[in-house]
Amino acid sequence: MSSTRLIFGFHAVTSRLRQNPDSIKEIFIDATRDDQRARGLVKLAESQKIHLITCESSRLTSMTGNDRHQGIVANIDIARSYVDISDVLDTLTEPARLLVLDGIQDPHNLGACLRVADAFGVHAVIAPKDRAVGLTSTVYKVSSGAADTVPYIAVTNLSRTLKQLKEQGIWIIGTAEDAEHDLTHFQIQGPVAWVFGSEEKGLRRLTRESCDQLVRIPMLGSIESLNIAVSAGICLFETHRQQSSA
Amino acid sequence: MSSTRLIFGFHAVTSRLRQNPDSIKEIFIDATRDDQRARGLVKLAESQKIHLITCESSRLTSMTGNDRHQGIVANIDIARSYVDISDVLDTLTEPARLLVLDGIQDPHNLGACLRVADAFGVHAVIAPKDRAVGLTSTVYKVSSGAADTVPYIAVTNLSRTLKQLKEQGIWIIGTAEDAEHDLTHFQIQGPVAWVFGSEEKGLRRLTRESCDQLVRIPMLGSIESLNIAVSAGICLFETHRQQSSA
Repeated sequence: MSSTRLIFGFHAVTSRLRQNPDSIKEIFIDATRDDQRARGLVKLAESQKIHLITCESSRLTSMTGNDRHQGIVANIDIARSYVDISDVLDTLTEPARLLVLDGIQDPHNLGACLRVADAFGVHAVIAPKDRAVGLTSTVYKVSSGAADTVPYIAVTNLSRTLKQLKEQGIWIIGTAEDAEHDLTHFQIQGPVAWVFGSEEKGLRRLTRESCDQLVRIPMLGSIESLNIAVSAGICLFETHRQQSSA
Repeated sequence: MSSTRLIFGFHAVTSRLRQNPDSIKEIFIDATRDDQRARGLVKLAESQKIHLITCESSRLTSMTGNDRHQGIVANIDIARSYVDISDVLDTLTEPARLLVLDGIQDPHNLGACLRVADAFGVHAVIAPKDRAVGLTSTVYKVSSGAADTVPYIAVTNLSRTLKQLKEQGIWIIGTAEDAEHDLTHFQIQGPVAWVFGSEEKGLRRLTRESCDQLVRIPMLGSIESLNIAVSAGICLFETHRQQSSA
């Protein structure tokens, strides 16, 4: 069984280069790319002494099985996983965007959450070590590769971690059905961590008390709540929408 | 096995009263509610000769098992299902909001889509009769009750139905990964039908050609696409956000 995996695209490879360069075995880059973004990535890779291989774009397409690589593919060692949130935060050059999952037990839900995290540029997914599913093979499969591109950080004490994030100026937004604020008219600025509870129990008391604000997704019909990955997708899209038009 | 079900809340009961009054066996209403919204609903129910029962709010809570009924509960006959999109469109007093699913095979995906449709005030979900899953018992279970509150209309020829919707002034927006427009900066106005293809194949050619515009959800990471219910949730939330602040 191989312990390496291919990740691709500028966002995924650059994040990996900044956060966990030791896990990168080599980077393949389209020989015809000579734009500023490509040069920046090459410079970053060289400063980390990572083996760079230039090749034709068609080879990258055949390696990854698709043409969404943007001319950049990295071969990573999946055994070298992330250990600490500071590994991620210390390397950011943009406002942090984090997803905190308080006690998700269902591997399908975690896999789907990793997928939306990848889609909307989340820098790390944080969850408690206990009473949470962790990165099982089902999670890997459901995540469609996002389990390799988004750092998953399991912490011993979630409330303490949220306190540390706050101290670093990250705004902690919890989601709850009975929250005062409606996401429809909610301003999201700067570094942010979105916190979701388990589908059955919602946020635990201590987690809830650790949030700076609580927000609810509007529910116009009869059902009580949405699936957690749907909720996370909506909150993260809205964050991206507001922050990209700012 | 019972063939009746309880639906509750103003949106669900009013929609049912307008679209399918024959399916309502009786309506229970909180005796203390005497606001304009409640009076409007009572008037509508009386005009349809529907049996109205006033009772205490606590009884409604015990009937539905929660306190989200807003003082209004209807007992409906689930056997009397919708047959035609005109049953729905003819009764609307607000711009149509429709969800069109082109060939969803997975009952979990359909159930989750019904759930987001209920949450964001969708008036009907439309799907082809063939090559689509239909309302199975798994769909009912996954939908958390939304299969009862959102009309599901199976049509013989989807392209023809889309043409009919267009002729009634409904704007048909398809979602595709290669679309020119990005949802992040996309204006959504008036009556609208969102069209989603199957996860594997996307929109079929004829369906795609029936759309007025194609939109993509931004994907910042490595994965190619989101789960259909997540995508639908994001597009419908964005529709609600724009149309509620307008």
